[in-house]
Amino acid sequence: MEKLYFASDYMDCAHPAVLQKLCENNLAHASGYGSDTFSDAAREKIRTACRCPGADVYFLTGGTQSNVTVIDTVLRPWQGVISATSGHIQIHEAGAVEFCGHRVIALPNRDGKITAEQIDACVAEYWGDDNHEHMVMPGMVYLSQPTEYGTLYSLQELEAIRAVCTARDLALFIDGARLAYALACPANDVTLPDLARLCDVFIIGGTKCGTLFGEAVVIPVSGFIPHFVTQIKQHGALLAKGFVNGLQFDALFTDGLYHRIGAGAIEKADRIRAALVAHGYSLGIPSPTNQIFFIIDDAKRQQLEERVAMSFMERVDERQVMMRFCTSWATKDEDVDTLISIL
Amino acid sequence: MEKLYFASDYMDCAHPAVLQKLCENNLAHASGYGSDTFSDAAREKIRTACRCPGADVYFLTGGTQSNVTVIDTVLRPWQGVISATSGHIQIHEAGAVEFCGHRVIALPNRDGKITAEQIDACVAEYWGDDNHEHMVMPGMVYLSQPTEYGTLYSLQELEAIRAVCTARDLALFIDGARLAYALACPANDVTLPDLARLCDVFIIGGTKCGTLFGEAVVIPVSGFIPHFVTQIKQHGALLAKGFVNGLQFDALFTDGLYHRIGAGAIEKADRIRAALVAHGYSLGIPSPTNQIFFIIDDAKRQQLEERVAMSFMERVDERQVMMRFCTSWATKDEDVDTLISIL
Amino acid sequence: MEKLYFASDYMDCAHPAVLQKLCENNLAHASGYGSDTFSDAAREKIRTACRCPGADVYFLTGGTQSNVTVIDTVLRPWQGVISATSGHIQIHEAGAVEFCGHRVIALPNRDGKITAEQIDACVAEYWGDDNHEHMVMPGMVYLSQPTEYGTLYSLQELEAIRAVCTARDLALFIDGARLAYALACPANDVTLPDLARLCDVFIIGGTKCGTLFGEAVVIPVSGFIPHFVTQIKQHGALLAKGFVNGLQFDALFTDGLYHRIGAGAIEKADRIRAALVAHGYSLGIPSPTNQIFFIIDDAKRQQLEERVAMSFMERVDERQVMMRFCTSWATKDEDVDTLISIL
Amino acid sequence: MEKLYFASDYMDCAHPAVLQKLCENNLAHASGYGSDTFSDAAREKIRTACRCPGADVYFLTGGTQSNVTVIDTVLRPWQGVISATSGHIQIHEAGAVEFCGHRVIALPNRDGKITAEQIDACVAEYWGDDNHEHMVMPGMVYLSQPTEYGTLYSLQELEAIRAVCTARDLALFIDGARLAYALACPANDVTLPDLARLCDVFIIGGTKCGTLFGEAVVIPVSGFIPHFVTQIKQHGALLAKGFVNGLQFDALFTDGLYHRIGAGAIEKADRIRAALVAHGYSLGIPSPTNQIFFIIDDAKRQQLEERVAMSFMERVDERQVMMRFCTSWATKDEDVDTLISIL
Repeated sequence: MEKLYFASDYMDCAHPAVLQKLCENNLAHASGYGSDTFSDAAREKIRTACRCPGADVYFLTGGTQSNVTVIDTVLRPWQGVISATSGHIQIHEAGAVEFCGHRVIALPNRDGKITAEQIDACVAEYWGDDNHEHMVMPGMVYLSQPTEYGTLYSLQELEAIRAVCTARDLALFIDGARLAYALACPANDVTLPDLARLCDVFIIGGTKCGTLFGEAVVIPVSGFIPHFVTQIKQHGALLAKGFVNGLQFDALFTDGLYHRIGAGAIEKADRIRAALVAHGYSLGIPSPTNQIFFIIDDAKRQQLEERVAMSFMERVDERQVMMRFCTSWATKDEDVDTLISIL
Repeated sequence: MEKLYFASDYMDCAHPAVLQKLCENNLAHASGYGSDTFSDAAREKIRTACRCPGADVYFLTGGTQSNVTVIDTVLRPWQGVISATSGHIQIHEAGAVEFCGHRVIALPNRDGKITAEQIDACVAEYWGDDNHEHMVMPGMVYLSQPTEYGTLYSLQELEAIRAVCTARDLALFIDGARLAYALACPANDVTLPDLARLCDVFIIGGTKCGTLFGEAVVIPVSGFIPHFVTQIKQHGALLAKGFVNGLQFDALFTDGLYHRIGAGAIEKADRIRAALVAHGYSLGIPSPTNQIFFIIDDAKRQQLEERVAMSFMERVDERQVMMRFCTSWATKDEDVDTLISIL
Repeated sequence: MEKLYFASDYMDCAHPAVLQKLCENNLAHASGYGSDTFSDAAREKIRTACRCPGADVYFLTGGTQSNVTVIDTVLRPWQGVISATSGHIQIHEAGAVEFCGHRVIALPNRDGKITAEQIDACVAEYWGDDNHEHMVMPGMVYLSQPTEYGTLYSLQELEAIRAVCTARDLALFIDGARLAYALACPANDVTLPDLARLCDVFIIGGTKCGTLFGEAVVIPVSGFIPHFVTQIKQHGALLAKGFVNGLQFDALFTDGLYHRIGAGAIEKADRIRAALVAHGYSLGIPSPTNQIFFIIDDAKRQQLEERVAMSFMERVDERQVMMRFCTSWATKDEDVDTLISIL
Repeated sequence: MEKLYFASDYMDCAHPAVLQKLCENNLAHASGYGSDTFSDAAREKIRTACRCPGADVYFLTGGTQSNVTVIDTVLRPWQGVISATSGHIQIHEAGAVEFCGHRVIALPNRDGKITAEQIDACVAEYWGDDNHEHMVMPGMVYLSQPTEYGTLYSLQELEAIRAVCTARDLALFIDGARLAYALACPANDVTLPDLARLCDVFIIGGTKCGTLFGEAVVIPVSGFIPHFVTQIKQHGALLAKGFVNGLQFDALFTDGLYHRIGAGAIEKADRIRAALVAHGYSLGIPSPTNQIFFIIDDAKRQQLEERVAMSFMERVDERQVMMRFCTSWATKDEDVDTLISIL
């Protein structure tokens, strides 16, 4: 018997509608490097969804690649990027930001989040030091929405962070690798137009939200990153067949697919969370999105892993660990039922 | 009436067999970053095709990305890479090699090729200079097969270059972005096992040879590039869903598809070349592969472009230009017939 | 009336013996880039002082420059350097390590120091993570002796750190920008031969210890950093008139000058410390070297600053601050007397 | 008998007036990193000499360091620097420009010089290419005055180059490592005020013109390079005791010393050149400055080298080589007499 699969949200190819779009346009004869009509159509749909008709939209391939390309092209050489200690760029990107010449200035996180106050204090410390010319100037704030722990910034929190960024001359960059699962979450009050209004750059994730690969980099104020195509190329991030990316994002933003992908995964995640709580499990992190964290003792874990693929997060104490289930567009309702029955 | 399409070889999605492989395995539940069984299967097939059972094989996304990641991880900081002045890394990669800290040492090319003698002289000049500690040490040779001009290195030429590389302690790296069109070419005498025997690293191109994207980096001596996964990640080149790459290369190396793709395109290119010559056109560059270069006067060009999409190469004189047709897996026989009838 | 000067230890030109050596050899006709006989003589004296006849010795210009050149040439691209949070490379070098592509992995310090246990735990965490291929590998330990807070590593502490470095395959690099003030300190039990035995690279500071500028980089195992001259050049750190550096270090290591410079400054610092304690001041940091830290209330500080140039360290509470006096080769006995009388 | 010394111009410590200035101010108690009054005084004298009261002036340590720091901080990441193939940055700086991420775009030189027409054609080629987004954008012109071959750009030539730079949006950077020997040369018609008017950045060389070390970077329009102190620091080029640099340049620009150094060396060089011509030697390169090139056959060379230290340039044919004499502030009249008598 095959195991139930709840280990991660980027281990299946692509939503059937996305694949179908590729198959239908197999002989594209499209022009290269994102200059094609498919990409243009996808850009236009994203601009509309963001209510930001002037935005620049670029399609890159992967998450680390997109993060680093944005950070390195927005920061000037003397600047670093502020991130939560739990931020993906700090933890699991192999030092790619430093590889491009910039420091990650890591601030302590709470459930994956940092606050406007922390950011302001960090910048104040820099400017307050007589020797700040010998120090790394904070130049950008990197957030993820949802965070690496599945939590969400509220609109109020983001407004406050934006205010600090404006006052302190910092760029605000939000990594939405799992953005579909934030946007469709009942607990969320931050929309795409909000992101376009508050961010200097943000990413609408494809890889974990229904495509084979691909992240849409949205730059609300056109031209904010100069010569971006050349800089994408320098970072090895310019896809020759950019239209493959364009076709996929066109599909995601047609007939509300991006929302449906998010909503389906959230609905399933909520059912699992409810079942966990009902069965007396403690949720390790108060995540309302498609990542479900829970505490389990070692014996039960072993038993569960015989039937279900899931992810280990960390050891809680001698007897217990925190584990993670993930749902996605690929999660089947019957698998959720079976999982709940097992719990 | 739609134009006949002969402009380039990377403007269609993917060979139907490749797309089918993706569709069949859509719910892969594969593990991430190339650690999956599909990628393993593809690696094994490539090792067999190269008769090199010990080779490391990694799947990257794009051409510039693969070139730069290989060059930057093989070279030590004090070294540069030798290339033809026509090499892709010198001309059309936005200075990505320099962006990573290394000089491209460009040698004059003849129809896109450089010789063992040129390479040897370049290295001799470095070591012969009393101040070579103040100079860039040549550390690697970059060739493309076929070249950017569609020409081929013969086995004898490559053996001679390998001998210089061995004598001079240079790594030999061959970029096979269009390798299918070399391997299937009657004029070619360099096989995959030859490449595995002669190169320190070489690339089996996917993007221009039937996949949506993807390049296979083959390292015949396992471990030649240390900590390569981390370094790929640092270069923003590690695909989360590596299995999408694995699935595509598995398809390419099943039932001889890679050869069939090359052979079909060459057969069509040869027909077009024959027709051009028969109609009195002069071929600008003696290319035997899927790129066909020819000289045409301005008036005829304009006329032709109304019916056929092709690429401009360079102006030859006041009256004539050099143009390019490309064939690929996506070229239809009837389109070749029509093109020939037009010529 | 001119203020007494105790603000810092690198605000005077050079010890008279060093200047005299330059003046005596003004028409050097020396060869360039450190290949001269003066540099050779200085190297030999340093090797003798370190009882390390095989060491490579290079003379660089400044502190940040030397730190970064060493760190960047020892680390491989996938590695970062472990430092105390108070380390100079983390605090006041403008992100120069990251600028060269490497992360500073900062560990909490105690009076400027980190421990073998902390280092071991940091490396264990890296290797213990299933995803360490996506993380920055610790590749080197950076210590300063004396530390930025004037404290000293004991021989036992360094032996323990060396043992961890050996077990964990880390390079050990000690920045001795103020090394003269450690070596001559009664509390110190770490000699130059100890440093040569324990370190992979260490720096014998000149700038703060009697020269116009200059740091001696000592590499006990010759060849440990390959092609170092070229890499120094690439980092903009190769002085054309290397002999100016050689002449200065020759003077420092002739007739025990380096020791005398240190001893004189320590003796004066000890007198000041004793006076501070006698007058009821609390020493903020237990530093036994040429930096003297003390707590003073705001009113007294203002009064004192009218007569004495000193450095502000940090605010302790609403009423008090921590200040610093520095002694050096240039400190005059009568100024110490006057300072003590003022206290 | 000691050899006559004409091998190079940076093999003696410093002009006596420069050393004296250091000795007189040995107990400087100056503030650090160039924020001292000596540096301010030197800056003011340089501004006056350049008739450019608003200029930024920074003192760096060495030639390669200054070139690379300027080039890397003026260029944006997508840009490269145009240089003569004979330019120091192209030949003998160990790829330091590429190490910082930028391509050197090398144009063929004539006696060390390039022309406005060449520069314009190079930029036109970039913009004329449909794929220029995939290419390195020329962003700066690097010239040396005098050139590496001792030749001079005329005012007319520089005006023409400036016009192209303005039209093409290129920064103009002139490396005056040997500037004293240009300014004092009768053949020269380019003054310091001309340089300040025409350049975006230029260097007044110290190392080869009378100081122990040091280059003055002059930025006529204040603020042209933002956050330059931090960027200097990141490049490892910020001298702690910046006042040592300031003191030296103060001496150079007091009582016309910089001019006298240049004039003395040129007068001696002219005498040697006249003697060479009188004795039938052919001057290999028409250099009017302190570098004297001449052709000599192998037998005579060997004979001459027994008495005179000089530099080998290149082999002319089987029987002859080109050699170089250099004069400087340190060249003695009697040595010139003896050299002439030997010739």
